[in-house]
Amino acid sequence: MEILKGAASSARIKEEAASLLAAMEGPAPKLAIVRVGERPDDLSYERGATKKLESFGLRVQSFAYPADISHEEFMDAFAKINRDEDVAGILLLCPLPKQIDQKVVAAAIDPLKDLDGISPVNAAKVFAGDPEGFAPCTAEAVMEVLKTAGIGVRGKRVVIVGRSMVVGRPLSMLMLKEDATVTICHTKTADLRAVCKEADILAAAAGKARMLDESYIRDGAVVIDVGINVDENGALCGDVDFQSLEGKAAAATPVPGGVGTVTTAVLARHLLLAAARAKAAVKKA
Amino acid sequence: MEILKGAASSARIKEEAASLLAAMEGPAPKLAIVRVGERPDDLSYERGATKKLESFGLRVQSFAYPADISHEEFMDAFAKINRDEDVAGILLLCPLPKQIDQKVVAAAIDPLKDLDGISPVNAAKVFAGDPEGFAPCTAEAVMEVLKTAGIGVRGKRVVIVGRSMVVGRPLSMLMLKEDATVTICHTKTADLRAVCKEADILAAAAGKARMLDESYIRDGAVVIDVGINVDENGALCGDVDFQSLEGKAAAATPVPGGVGTVTTAVLARHLLLAAARAKAAVKKA
Repeated sequence: MEILKGAASSARIKEEAASLLAAMEGPAPKLAIVRVGERPDDLSYERGATKKLESFGLRVQSFAYPADISHEEFMDAFAKINRDEDVAGILLLCPLPKQIDQKVVAAAIDPLKDLDGISPVNAAKVFAGDPEGFAPCTAEAVMEVLKTAGIGVRGKRVVIVGRSMVVGRPLSMLMLKEDATVTICHTKTADLRAVCKEADILAAAAGKARMLDESYIRDGAVVIDVGINVDENGALCGDVDFQSLEGKAAAATPVPGGVGTVTTAVLARHLLLAAARAKAAVKKA
Repeated sequence: MEILKGAASSARIKEEAASLLAAMEGPAPKLAIVRVGERPDDLSYERGATKKLESFGLRVQSFAYPADISHEEFMDAFAKINRDEDVAGILLLCPLPKQIDQKVVAAAIDPLKDLDGISPVNAAKVFAGDPEGFAPCTAEAVMEVLKTAGIGVRGKRVVIVGRSMVVGRPLSMLMLKEDATVTICHTKTADLRAVCKEADILAAAAGKARMLDESYIRDGAVVIDVGINVDENGALCGDVDFQSLEGKAAAATPVPGGVGTVTTAVLARHLLLAAARAKAAVKKA
């Protein structure tokens, strides 16, 4: 079984990013990471993203707010970041505390700076297959892993387990754009095992530790594990029991070290695309 | 085989519409039908929609423009209709002539008046499963036909042939919202027959006359035909060879007389919903 490590995709995207950056005048584009509270998941993602983007030669600035900030105060602060011409892109760490209306923030974010595709404008573009839209970085990272491994999706049966707006739904549309035949499964799917076994490519994005094993896999299938869970021993694991796939799957992504590590590389590329578009718009005006 | 006639759904929706209308003060809500040029398809749909909505006790006004109107002139005229407080909803007959940028019109339409779901705001809501969004009427008509027949979709295998933004994609999201396991097929699907045979419910929206026959159908499946085509003899027909389904499918919609007739009933309900929301917003303000 081929192990599809995220590092190979990150390296390829880094090369692309380097040429985009070299072609750009002025200071390197800046990412604003917006965080409310001190959730360990958020802090960990913020550290990882900062390290990755800085290693790509990009700038990162964190904007952190207390967990009990009011909706109004937060929206005022967010509007300033949104308008700041030195900020080329924004990553909002979600979920937000419940006093802040996340839908209002998603509708307010400048779609051109919305690197993780939370704006309805970008969602509509991804839904329609418009390449100008920013898809959520994790969904796009799945496509990048397949691309790096030279695994085409055209005409293939792709089964996606999970229907969130962060992975399942946008991934289904990215796959459809590349001419895959796409099936979307979820908690109400009858006989999930049988449906998963139809897959040439199985993408697991259900968020449940090791819920899928080799009995869900057709011989020779490719398995992409988007899950990041903590198991009963406190260890990171995916939605797939990786060890069980040996001798059954043709290729699979590990967790950790798989799709997750590609997400921040996609974020970096989105930042460069956003900056390039903003510069082009200024020149045109 | 049960024949799922559209008339039954139209009648049910008409009853719902009558109670919505009875609860409403002032004149009946008005639909603006916006047409550019004199395409026979558009004229026929306009006549059908006008007749249906008037039979529901609703008002309809047609706004017709010459086929060679410029983009700028059209946008000016469209903006007036969009702002008109007496217009509760808009139906734009598409496709528009090529000098008019349809994307610009779709982005300009007031999402609250966008009864056929062409605005990115409504597309994003349908994508996210938000019930506040207006889905394209034809996609929603499929759900209505199933509802009228008492055919649930939860946990069922639903296969959709076609991936347009008018039917295939929005229908996939409406099905997902109702907990179906959804597969989307298209021209690049390998072994379309085998995939279609997995369906408990098969929805054909490919726009190709009689491309599917009984050999694509599992015994006892439900077949919903969204296609409206003209065959080699000039007769209306669907994407499915209806006659061949007898003894194989459990139920199927005919063409004509099936989904197509429900589309304008859904349009009428959307108009009433839009009018009710506009009145509620005025009261609140």
